[in-house]
Amino acid sequence: MGNEKGLTPQAEDFSAWYNEIVQQAELASHSAVRGCMVIRPYGYRIWELIQAGLDGMFKATGHQNAYFPLFLPKSALDREAEHVEGFAPETAIVTHAGNSELEEPLVVRPTSEAIIWPIVRDWIDSYRDLPLLLNQWANVVRWELRTRPFLRTTEFLWQEGHTAHATESEAEEETRRMLGVYRTFMEDWMALPVITGLKTESEKFAGAVRTYATEGLMRDNRALQAGTSHNLGQNFARAFDVRFQTEEGEHDFVWSTSWGVSTRLIGGLIMAHGDDTGLVLPPRLAPYQAVIVPIWRNEDQKGQVLESAARLAEALVGGGIRTHLDGREGMNPGAKYYDWERRGVPVRLEIGPRDLEAGQAMVVRRFTPDGEDRKRPLSLGGITEELETLLVRMQGELLAEATERRGANTTRNVESMDTFRDVVESVGGFVFTGWCGDEGCEARVKEETKATIRVIPDEEFRSSDPPTRCLCGEASVAEVVRAKAY
Amino acid sequence: MGNEKGLTPQAEDFSAWYNEIVQQAELASHSAVRGCMVIRPYGYRIWELIQAGLDGMFKATGHQNAYFPLFLPKSALDREAEHVEGFAPETAIVTHAGNSELEEPLVVRPTSEAIIWPIVRDWIDSYRDLPLLLNQWANVVRWELRTRPFLRTTEFLWQEGHTAHATESEAEEETRRMLGVYRTFMEDWMALPVITGLKTESEKFAGAVRTYATEGLMRDNRALQAGTSHNLGQNFARAFDVRFQTEEGEHDFVWSTSWGVSTRLIGGLIMAHGDDTGLVLPPRLAPYQAVIVPIWRNEDQKGQVLESAARLAEALVGGGIRTHLDGREGMNPGAKYYDWERRGVPVRLEIGPRDLEAGQAMVVRRFTPDGEDRKRPLSLGGITEELETLLVRMQGELLAEATERRGANTTRNVESMDTFRDVVESVGGFVFTGWCGDEGCEARVKEETKATIRVIPDEEFRSSDPPTRCLCGEASVAEVVRAKAY
Repeated sequence: MGNEKGLTPQAEDFSAWYNEIVQQAELASHSAVRGCMVIRPYGYRIWELIQAGLDGMFKATGHQNAYFPLFLPKSALDREAEHVEGFAPETAIVTHAGNSELEEPLVVRPTSEAIIWPIVRDWIDSYRDLPLLLNQWANVVRWELRTRPFLRTTEFLWQEGHTAHATESEAEEETRRMLGVYRTFMEDWMALPVITGLKTESEKFAGAVRTYATEGLMRDNRALQAGTSHNLGQNFARAFDVRFQTEEGEHDFVWSTSWGVSTRLIGGLIMAHGDDTGLVLPPRLAPYQAVIVPIWRNEDQKGQVLESAARLAEALVGGGIRTHLDGREGMNPGAKYYDWERRGVPVRLEIGPRDLEAGQAMVVRRFTPDGEDRKRPLSLGGITEELETLLVRMQGELLAEATERRGANTTRNVESMDTFRDVVESVGGFVFTGWCGDEGCEARVKEETKATIRVIPDEEFRSSDPPTRCLCGEASVAEVVRAKAY
Repeated sequence: MGNEKGLTPQAEDFSAWYNEIVQQAELASHSAVRGCMVIRPYGYRIWELIQAGLDGMFKATGHQNAYFPLFLPKSALDREAEHVEGFAPETAIVTHAGNSELEEPLVVRPTSEAIIWPIVRDWIDSYRDLPLLLNQWANVVRWELRTRPFLRTTEFLWQEGHTAHATESEAEEETRRMLGVYRTFMEDWMALPVITGLKTESEKFAGAVRTYATEGLMRDNRALQAGTSHNLGQNFARAFDVRFQTEEGEHDFVWSTSWGVSTRLIGGLIMAHGDDTGLVLPPRLAPYQAVIVPIWRNEDQKGQVLESAARLAEALVGGGIRTHLDGREGMNPGAKYYDWERRGVPVRLEIGPRDLEAGQAMVVRRFTPDGEDRKRPLSLGGITEELETLLVRMQGELLAEATERRGANTTRNVESMDTFRDVVESVGGFVFTGWCGDEGCEARVKEETKATIRVIPDEEFRSSDPPTRCLCGEASVAEVVRAKAY
C-alpha cells in the first residue's frame, strides 16, 4: 500500500508499464498455478461495476440469468465438428474424482454451448417457448501458453449469453442487438470508442456462422477485441438436436446465438486510458469516484479536520458518489496523492485547516482536457451536486479524448503493401484497406506484418471513398480494418 | 411451463415432494454430469436475491470481494494435515491440459483456504495491514456419492469469507460476527429461524479450531445446517507461513477465519416453507413478489384489461415491487393461478372487466395466518403502498409461522435413550439432551438413531434447567441439540 515504486514510461516499454500498473494499483496478482491470476479487491470492484452495468442492460433487453455446470463429458464437446477443433487443444481435463478414475473424462468448460444445448433442448417444445434468452456469469478455462493478467489468462471470468430463436432473421437481429449493447456499454461506461463489424472466416468463433466484434484502440496503438457476438445459425441445434414446433405445426431446429465479454475488459480499461502517472478510471467504473485526503499539522487540527472530512464523506456517499476517506496514519498527504493517482481515482478532495476556515475543499482532477487547471477550490455547500456534474463531465471528456486519439491514429485508403508496412511500423493504429477476400492473402499479410484483419467494419465506420484494390493488388471485395492486436 | 402435474403430498413422501417441486417450479434440472445441477432462471433469480442481500451485509461489515483461482496444486492441499484428510477424498483432479499431461496434477477447489493463504501472505507485512477482510463468490466442487439438487451437489455456488487478524480474540469476534450476520439474514430475509451454536470436534470443519453453525428446521422435522463460520486459529497461517510484524515489532502468525453459505440455502427455503400446493417464498427473496393475471372473455375486454394490467404493473415496478404481468395467450386464468401458486409467488392480483369497473384488483395471498381470508379486493388507488405493507407483513408472518412450528417440534430435557429414540422416531425435530463429551458416545447415538449432535447451542437457546445426564447415563458436560439432518 502506498508504495512509491517508479513506473516505466509507456513510450519506453508499454508492456512493462502494463505489468507494473497491474501490480502497483493492486488489481491482480499471480498464483501458484501458471496463467491463473488472482483478482485483488480493487480490481474485483471494477469487475463488479462492469457486471452491474452489463447485467442491467441484459435484463432490460429481456435476458434471464441461469447457471450451467462447470464440467462437460468429453463426448459432448465432440458433437459440433468445428467447435471441438477450435477448443479441444485448449481444454483442461479431469480424469480422477472422489479417489477413483472416471469412466469418461470431463472437460472444464472453455465456453458453454456444448453444455447448454443438450440441457435446454428439454425446455423447448414449441414456438411459444421462443425466444429463449439466457445469460450466465461464470468462470471458464482455456489453457493458454502465453498469459498476461486480464488480457489472456488460463481461467477467466466472463458472461456468456445463449439464446434460441424461431427464425434465422430473429437470431441475426439478436446477434446485432447484443453487439450494440456491448458498444453502448464500452462507449458510455468504459469511455472506450469501438469499431463494430464482422470477423473474417478465419477469425470467427469455432462453430459460428458469423462472428461480430467490437474493436477498441489502446494507447500503444494496438487493437483490442473487447467483445464478440456470434450468430450460430442451426449448427448447435443440429449437433444437439434442439427442435421446436413452429406456429404452422412443422418441426424445425432452433436458431441460436452466443455472445460474451470477460475480465479482459479490465485490461482494456487500463490500456485505453492509463498514463505515465498510473491508472485512469472512467467515473462510472471507478471503485472510488472521490477520495478525501485530510491534511493536518498537529493533533488539534487532526481532530477537527477528520471530523469535517467524515461529514463530507457521509454527504457525498448520501449523494450517490462512491467516496473513500483516506485516514491512514503515518503516511503524509503527498504519499496519499501519489497512491490514489496511481490507482486512477477521478477526483481527489484535499481538506486542511485553511480549507475549513474558507468553507471549501480543494478539488484535484485525475485528468483534464489539455490546458485546463486540474486543481480548484469548491465551496462545501453544494459540493455533492458540483461533483456529480463534474464526474459526468469527466466521463464525457475521457470518451472524447479516446475518440480523438483513435482518429489521430487511424489511417484510411491504404492501397499498397509498402505504405501499409510503413504505417503499421511507424504509427500502428487502425489501418483501413481493401481486401480481395482471399484467406491466403489475409494470412500472408498477417505473417509479414503481424497486423490482422480486425473486422469488416459496419457501414457507419466505412470510408466514403474506400480503396478499390487489396494490398495484394487484386480487386477489393470489402473494406477492412487491420491492426496489430492483443 | 404451466404444467398441471400433481405434487406428492409432503406427509406421504417428503423427498418425492422435494424433487417434484424443484422440477415443477423450474428451479433446477439435472445435467449430463452426475451430481452437477443446472440452476434454471427462476431458481437462479432467488440466488441473485440471496447474493444481493448477503453481499450488502458483508460490505457493511467491512469486507471486500476478490477472486482466487479455481485450481490449486495438489501439494498445496497437503500442507494442512487435517484439511487434506477432510477434503482430499472428495476432490476432482485435472491431470491433462492443453493436450499434454501436467507435471503436477491440479485440484479443483473444494474450498479455498489452501489457495488463498499462500497468495495473501504477500499482502501482509505488519499489523497495519490487518484485519484483512475478504470474501469470494465462486463455484466449488466436492465429489459427492449421493446428490440432491441444491442440498448436496458435486458443483455448487457459494460465498467463502476469509479473514486474517492480529489477535486470537479478534478472530473469534469475527467468527461470531459472521455467524450473527448469517442468523440475521436467515431470519429477516429467508424467514427461517435458526439455532446458533458450536459444532462438536467430530463435526467441525477440517482444519478449524472451532466451527459455529446455524441450524434450521425443515417441514419434515429434519435439521438443515444452513451456514458455518470457522475460527481457524493459526493453523493455516502456520501451514502457509503467513506472518506479520506486531505493533511491538515482534513477528507472529496471523489468526484466520473462514465462513460460508451456498446454494444449499435455496434447498432450505424450499423445505422450510413449501406446502402441498407448492413453493412458498418469503417476499424479500421472491423473484416476483406480485404476479398480475388479466382476465377477459372477448377481444374487446382483452384490450382494455391488458392495458390496465400493464399500467398497474408499471406502477408497482415503479414502487419497487418485483412484478410480473402474465399475459400468456392460450392459457386460462385458472391454469395461471395454479402455476404461480406452485412457484410460490407471495401475491397474485386478478384483474378483469368487473374489477376495472369497480376500480379495484382482487388480491390473493399465497399464505395467511390460520383462518384469515386469502382473498380480498384492493382499490387501485394507493395499491402500491397497500402491497408494500402487505409484503412486509407477510414476511413477518412467515417467520412467525416457522418459529411456531419449530417450537412445536422441539423437545427439551430428554435424559434417557429410550425417550430419545421415541422422540426421534415419532416427532423428529430438535431434541435437547445432555452430553457426556465423549466422541464414542456421540458416534453410538448417531449410529443407532441417525440423529446427530447439531450444535452445542449458544446461551440464549439453552434450557433454563438443562439435563444433568447424557443419554448414556454419564454426567452431562454440555447441553446439546440433536436431530436427524440433511
